[in-house]
Amino acid sequence: MILIQVTARAPGKVILFGEHAVVHGKPAIAVAVDRLAHVTLTGRTDSIIRAEISRLGVDGYLNLENETINTQGYQIEVGLLKYVLKALKAVDHRTEPGTGLDVTVDIEMPVASGLGSSAAVTVATLAAASKYHQLNLKPKAISSLAHLVELEVQGAASPIDTTLSTYGGVIYLSPDVQEIVRLPIDWDLPLVIGHTRRQGNTGELVESVRLKKESYPSVINPIFESIQEVTEEARNALLEKDENKLGELMNINHGLLDALGVNTPALSRMVYLARQKGALGSKITGAGGGGSIIAYCPEKMDEVISELQKEEQAFPVKLRHEGVTCNVIE
Amino acid sequence: MILIQVTARAPGKVILFGEHAVVHGKPAIAVAVDRLAHVTLTGRTDSIIRAEISRLGVDGYLNLENETINTQGYQIEVGLLKYVLKALKAVDHRTEPGTGLDVTVDIEMPVASGLGSSAAVTVATLAAASKYHQLNLKPKAISSLAHLVELEVQGAASPIDTTLSTYGGVIYLSPDVQEIVRLPIDWDLPLVIGHTRRQGNTGELVESVRLKKESYPSVINPIFESIQEVTEEARNALLEKDENKLGELMNINHGLLDALGVNTPALSRMVYLARQKGALGSKITGAGGGGSIIAYCPEKMDEVISELQKEEQAFPVKLRHEGVTCNVIE
Repeated sequence: MILIQVTARAPGKVILFGEHAVVHGKPAIAVAVDRLAHVTLTGRTDSIIRAEISRLGVDGYLNLENETINTQGYQIEVGLLKYVLKALKAVDHRTEPGTGLDVTVDIEMPVASGLGSSAAVTVATLAAASKYHQLNLKPKAISSLAHLVELEVQGAASPIDTTLSTYGGVIYLSPDVQEIVRLPIDWDLPLVIGHTRRQGNTGELVESVRLKKESYPSVINPIFESIQEVTEEARNALLEKDENKLGELMNINHGLLDALGVNTPALSRMVYLARQKGALGSKITGAGGGGSIIAYCPEKMDEVISELQKEEQAFPVKLRHEGVTCNVIE
Repeated sequence: MILIQVTARAPGKVILFGEHAVVHGKPAIAVAVDRLAHVTLTGRTDSIIRAEISRLGVDGYLNLENETINTQGYQIEVGLLKYVLKALKAVDHRTEPGTGLDVTVDIEMPVASGLGSSAAVTVATLAAASKYHQLNLKPKAISSLAHLVELEVQGAASPIDTTLSTYGGVIYLSPDVQEIVRLPIDWDLPLVIGHTRRQGNTGELVESVRLKKESYPSVINPIFESIQEVTEEARNALLEKDENKLGELMNINHGLLDALGVNTPALSRMVYLARQKGALGSKITGAGGGGSIIAYCPEKMDEVISELQKEEQAFPVKLRHEGVTCNVIE
C-alpha cells in the first residue's frame, strides 16, 4: 500500500457589484482572488480521519459514517470542518472503509468575511479527494457538489462562491434566470481588502433588506434597479479596463448599499479612508453589517493598505485567473 | 423727527428630504427651524447707513445709490452684508435720501451651513425695512422680494429658503412644477444639527451630480426616483407623526445622497455616531460636501448632541411654526 499525498488549492472570491440586489433577481459580478484555501490529504495506515485547520487552532476526528466531528471534548467552533466532512462524505469512494486520512487545511483569508473561505475549502477538499480516490471529477461536477455541500451545511447558499473557487476568473450572474457567465477579463484587477473584526450575519442582513423592500417597495425597487444598471455598466468597464468608471461605479454601489441599511460605522470609515488615500473607488463587499470592504486603487495600494491597517486588517488581492488545482506526491 | 427702531426676526430652515433630486424636478420637504436671524434698524440723524454683524465681526458702510459696501479698507468677507444691502435697496422708500440707519444683524445659526442664514437675514431685513418705511408689505411680497435678492446676490437660488423664512412651518415642493405646498404639521419635530467646519460649495456639488446623471443616466435616474418616493412616504410620515418611519426614510435618503457622491468622511461619521447614540434617523441636509447633518432623536437628543460635540458643532432645533415677525420701539 502506497500512502499518497494530494494537495488541492482553491481561490476565495469577492463580490464586486450587485450584492443584496442579486437575491432579488438582479445581476452581480464576482471575482476569484489570489487568497487560497489549501487542503492536503495524506493516507494513514489506520482507519482514522483526522482534520486540522492549524491557522484557526481547530482540529478533530471526522466520522463519515454518522457524519460527526469529535473534538475530544474540547468545545471548539468546528466551523469549516463541517464543510470538510460533508465534502469527504460526498466523494467517499474508499475501497477499504478502514483507510484513514490526515486532512490539513490552510487558509490565506479571514473566515466569515465575505471572501468565500467555506467554498474555497469545500472545493479544495472535493478536488483533493477526487484525485486521491482517482475519481478525476470534472470541474463542473466539483462545482455542483461543492454547492450541494454549502447548501447542506448552511441551509442556503449562492453558487457564486463555489463556481469561482472551482473555475477562477470573473463571473457575471445574469438577471432573472441568474445564469453564470464567465467574463473574459485579461488584466489583474488589483484590489485592497479591508476587514473588520465584526462579522455580519448574512441571513439576518438579507432578511432586513427583504423587510425594507416589503415596507417601501416604491423606494427600494428603484434602488435595486440602480444597482442592476451599475452592474451592467461595470461589466463594460471591466471588459474595457476603464479604471475611473469602475471606481465611480463602486462608489455609487456603496451608497446604494448604505441606503439598503447594511453599512456600519467601521465599514463606512474604511470606505472613506481608502478614497482619501487615493482609491478610485471603494465599497462594502458581500452582505455588509461587518465583514469587508474592497478598494480599487491600482496606483496607491501601499498607502491605502497602511492607512486601513491603522484600524483594521487590510491586505492586497488580485484576480486569480486559475481555478482549483491539484498535485500529487507519491 | 422721531428716530424709531424696528426689529424683525426670521427663521432659518433645514431640508428634510429630497435635496439634489429637487434640482431635477423631484419633490422636496423643508422645515423652518427656531434658529433666527434678527435684524434691527435704528434711525440715525445723519445720512449714513452702517451695518454690523457682530457675531461674525463684520461691519461696513452701505451705499444704496451705487450699491457698494465700504469696510474702511479692511479686507473682510462682507458675505451677508450683500443681502442686507440688496434688501434695503429693494424697499428703499426713504422720503429724505439723507436719512441714515444703523443696521445690526444677529444670527443664531452657522453661516453657509445649509441652514438658510442668507434667506433669514434677507427676509428679516425686508420685513424690518418694510415696517420702518411704513410700507407694510404682505408676506407674499416679502417672500418674492427676498427670492429676487437671493437671485441677485447668488446668481441661482431656490425659493424654499425665502418661503420658509417668511412663513415658517413645513413646506413640500411638488414634483415637476415645484409648487410650494405648506404642510399642516402640528408637532415640534425636534432635530439635532451637526455642523462640520468644512463648507460645501453648493454650485459645484449640484454640477457634480448633474455630470454623474449625464454619464450614467440609467443608474442615476432610478436614484432620483427612489428619492422622490422617499419624500412622498416622508410627507405621510410627517403628517401621521410616524417617528420610526420618518427615521428609516432619513437613513435611506442619506444612502442615496452618498450614492450621488455628496457625502464626506466627516458627515458620514456624524450620521453614524448619531444613529449609534439612539437617533431614529440621520442624514446629510442640504448640498453636502461639508455643511450639516440632521438627526431625528426625540428621546436621545442630549446623548446625540454631546457625542457629536466631541468632534464638531452640534445643537438642537425644532420646527418654527411662526414666520418672520416684527416689532417697533418708538
